[in-house]
Amino acid sequence: MSEKHDAVDLSHHLSKLALTLESRPPAAYNPGPGTIGMDGGVPDTEYFPIESITVEYLKPSAFPLKPTDVLPHGSGVLGWIANVLTGKGSKTTAAPTGQFVIPRRLRSEDEGEFELDTALQYSPITGLPAAESLIDDWVARVHKPAYNDWKTMLDIGASCAWSSALSILLNPGDSFLTDRYAYNLGLDQARARATFPVAVATDVEGLSAVGLERVLASWDEKARGFKRPRVIYTQGGIHNPTGLLITAQRKKDIYAVAVRYDLIIVEDDPYYYQQASAPYSTGGTRAAEKQTDEEWLDSLVPSFLRFDYEGRVIRLDTFSKTIGPGGRLGYYTSSPLLIEKLAALHQSYISFPSGLSQAICANLLHTYRTEGFTRWLRGLTAQYELRRNWAIDALHKALDVRAEDRWSRALTAYAPANGQMAEKFARKSLMSFVPPDGGMFVWFNIHLHNHPRYRHQTSPAAAKNRLSAELWTAIADGGVIFRRGELFAVEGDEERARQGEEDVFLRASFGSGTTEELEKGMTIFATVLVKFFQ
Amino acid sequence: MSEKHDAVDLSHHLSKLALTLESRPPAAYNPGPGTIGMDGGVPDTEYFPIESITVEYLKPSAFPLKPTDVLPHGSGVLGWIANVLTGKGSKTTAAPTGQFVIPRRLRSEDEGEFELDTALQYSPITGLPAAESLIDDWVARVHKPAYNDWKTMLDIGASCAWSSALSILLNPGDSFLTDRYAYNLGLDQARARATFPVAVATDVEGLSAVGLERVLASWDEKARGFKRPRVIYTQGGIHNPTGLLITAQRKKDIYAVAVRYDLIIVEDDPYYYQQASAPYSTGGTRAAEKQTDEEWLDSLVPSFLRFDYEGRVIRLDTFSKTIGPGGRLGYYTSSPLLIEKLAALHQSYISFPSGLSQAICANLLHTYRTEGFTRWLRGLTAQYELRRNWAIDALHKALDVRAEDRWSRALTAYAPANGQMAEKFARKSLMSFVPPDGGMFVWFNIHLHNHPRYRHQTSPAAAKNRLSAELWTAIADGGVIFRRGELFAVEGDEERARQGEEDVFLRASFGSGTTEELEKGMTIFATVLVKFFQ
Repeated sequence: MSEKHDAVDLSHHLSKLALTLESRPPAAYNPGPGTIGMDGGVPDTEYFPIESITVEYLKPSAFPLKPTDVLPHGSGVLGWIANVLTGKGSKTTAAPTGQFVIPRRLRSEDEGEFELDTALQYSPITGLPAAESLIDDWVARVHKPAYNDWKTMLDIGASCAWSSALSILLNPGDSFLTDRYAYNLGLDQARARATFPVAVATDVEGLSAVGLERVLASWDEKARGFKRPRVIYTQGGIHNPTGLLITAQRKKDIYAVAVRYDLIIVEDDPYYYQQASAPYSTGGTRAAEKQTDEEWLDSLVPSFLRFDYEGRVIRLDTFSKTIGPGGRLGYYTSSPLLIEKLAALHQSYISFPSGLSQAICANLLHTYRTEGFTRWLRGLTAQYELRRNWAIDALHKALDVRAEDRWSRALTAYAPANGQMAEKFARKSLMSFVPPDGGMFVWFNIHLHNHPRYRHQTSPAAAKNRLSAELWTAIADGGVIFRRGELFAVEGDEERARQGEEDVFLRASFGSGTTEELEKGMTIFATVLVKFFQ
Repeated sequence: MSEKHDAVDLSHHLSKLALTLESRPPAAYNPGPGTIGMDGGVPDTEYFPIESITVEYLKPSAFPLKPTDVLPHGSGVLGWIANVLTGKGSKTTAAPTGQFVIPRRLRSEDEGEFELDTALQYSPITGLPAAESLIDDWVARVHKPAYNDWKTMLDIGASCAWSSALSILLNPGDSFLTDRYAYNLGLDQARARATFPVAVATDVEGLSAVGLERVLASWDEKARGFKRPRVIYTQGGIHNPTGLLITAQRKKDIYAVAVRYDLIIVEDDPYYYQQASAPYSTGGTRAAEKQTDEEWLDSLVPSFLRFDYEGRVIRLDTFSKTIGPGGRLGYYTSSPLLIEKLAALHQSYISFPSGLSQAICANLLHTYRTEGFTRWLRGLTAQYELRRNWAIDALHKALDVRAEDRWSRALTAYAPANGQMAEKFARKSLMSFVPPDGGMFVWFNIHLHNHPRYRHQTSPAAAKNRLSAELWTAIADGGVIFRRGELFAVEGDEERARQGEEDVFLRASFGSGTTEELEKGMTIFATVLVKFFQ
């Protein structure tokens, strides 16, 4: 990459709302030191009832890099100790916890960077300065945006962040491009703002750059009835719902199309760090054992930011999958103009993220330091990878799962070969899936076209819908809740039927629950599926 | 009050946006116990890095009921101890702090009601159930709504809550009724949603019910160019910026008009508990000393909820002034329909409030219990009352402040009688103000019509603007930042000039800073004011 430049001017992308939002002008008056502030409705910090917050945290190495077991459930530190004592523990034997204190007021000898006087007070829209600074360093270290003047801004989580991005970019009635199957809440958020998705083909490497080019090049505004989309919404790391990783080359290709057609890319990326160390293979992981934590971090497939030399990416990060969703904390990375407008929007609506969440989460990052947080993420990722393997192992046990095409990563599942059913149905596959590259979802393609009752139905869309609902309910009756693939569909039933799509999808999460539950869930699914295809 | 009824149907008030918001339908499928959830992208609680949070809090009695000094600044518990030792303390001598622990997982013997497994996880839009339940109890105890089926819902603070209320009630281009001078950020939030305020006259008892009736009765849609407003926005307790209390009778009167004209009242009430125990009188408070804490709570002027027998109030509460703004936590109280739509809106945008904030703040309430939180509020209010008195005492010292009209609560200020200036200007008042009934603001009415250069100006509006900016800057140059009254004005400069309004306003906060700063700030203001009128 040649010398970095500043972001290009993308102000023509701003929505009408964004244009009306007044950014806080640079203060017309700069009060000198010692000025007495009697301006705002600011309570005195002495009146905050909280004197200190002490946080006991798991050490970064709490989870092993080569787990043989997912963490025993219901354990916590006491459980951890019990498990270590009984030799069943999967957390490493390194010291389990440390603690830090957020005092009312920092003194010069304090190690932390956060104090309640600041965290409990009104604070800047873009985040507590100490938290902002940690985030800046992290983005510079991990994502290395390809332009100079990128900025970050703390927000209250990726789903709100995506809504806000929509608000500053699109007017009601505008559209955006996304994968044929995209994150369902992301679609809901968009629909609630009267903006709507346009589907682009997706393959195992992610949103298709060729498909994207085709949609844009052949855009017929009259026939479509609305303008060519100016925004792409996709998930940069592990895609939801498909569980697949967009490759670096694909990101470059998509970015090139975005430059050619002057698009903005909103990269929603909650599962970035959950990139599995190795593709699924029955029997376990083959972890890159000699990798240092630093090398691991560098080995992750880069985000769109790495290729963003013009500042046309709005990246959405969240701590929901790395610290906890209840913190309601995430951050944007984008160009100064877009960050400024996002800040103005937040100023006019949601205000700043909880200072308590900021202080607790950012103090944790400060305590972990870059190395520690990297190690923490790596330990988590190893757990999710093991969970993926367990879930798919369980399917292998319960069904006849075969790799039928050496050029495809998909596995196809049949009724087990040793059963009575197998004789009857062995020739007909039940479903197929690509073992996920990480994250927490498996995306099952249910081969409805092989279902005996499928051909009896008159309308293909109606047939699909009825059978799909029947299957979901049968699985739920069996005791497992999956999410129906239809919820993620950008195109309507009829459109998908018209495109010859006969099958339906189901998304299963392996992100939580005990190993027993994971295995039981998959087994129930397999059993119900075999019965359903009778 | 006769038997309570349920809220009346106000669905005709919903905005187009609210009508498109799909409320979460009652789950079509109720999973039985033991069901394995593989539906959402929910991380396992074992992966949360926080093992416990220990909160050290000030005891409810930390602040005395009859303070002789506002809390010494920069103290905290260490300072408290130092002050007790040196006899300078203003916190009471009762034990200063306690602590509670939010564990990863509650055990049956734990005293708290909050655990990190829940607080760090995804949680209901309306709030953590344990927090919700505490809020419900508090609202039932304090506000006693006059209808049966009221609901509460946690939110991320009153300014966002007001924006959301606007969004579910008004369409862009719609208007709402409010005080001639209203909370400036509230106005900004409304303008950002393309809705606009219509001014109603305000007197010392609050928004005028007669003025309200007049505006509504004489509404001429053709002449105005837009529909009659359907919503009132006002501050129920201590009004911002005027610092005055809306009396109970006035609330009843306003509510009666709201029923007659089918209006919804949005009651934004951050300063409800900061109702001073006594009107300002030089020399100190005359606290209702024998009152118990319970009696004190009951003695507060009721909120609009107390008179709301139809469910047409959306009340906005916040913890910003009672715990700390950084918690970004507040709550709505309203009818089931309006709460349902607010929840659906939040679902489609901001999601739920920070679980960490909820757990910390609600666990504090749980620990304090109703009695303790009441005592805490009463202690805070005594501090704010003392601050009010100090600020106004300082004005009395620096200016010749007189009560000129026995039928008015206003005080009028002249240049000090003993100075050289006084001889020259004694006949002309500089400003007047009504000593605030609580809260944290004094609202100064600057008598610009007495300014020597006022008459030389051609356009009254321009004259006002120029002199007002000049005064604000002179005060700032003197070292004190006030807020210009123009920011709170609902009507434009010309409109106010047309109504014969010659004066301008300045709002000063006495909510924070040391006693020395409070006194110094007022003295600087007085000095600058006298000079400005030369």
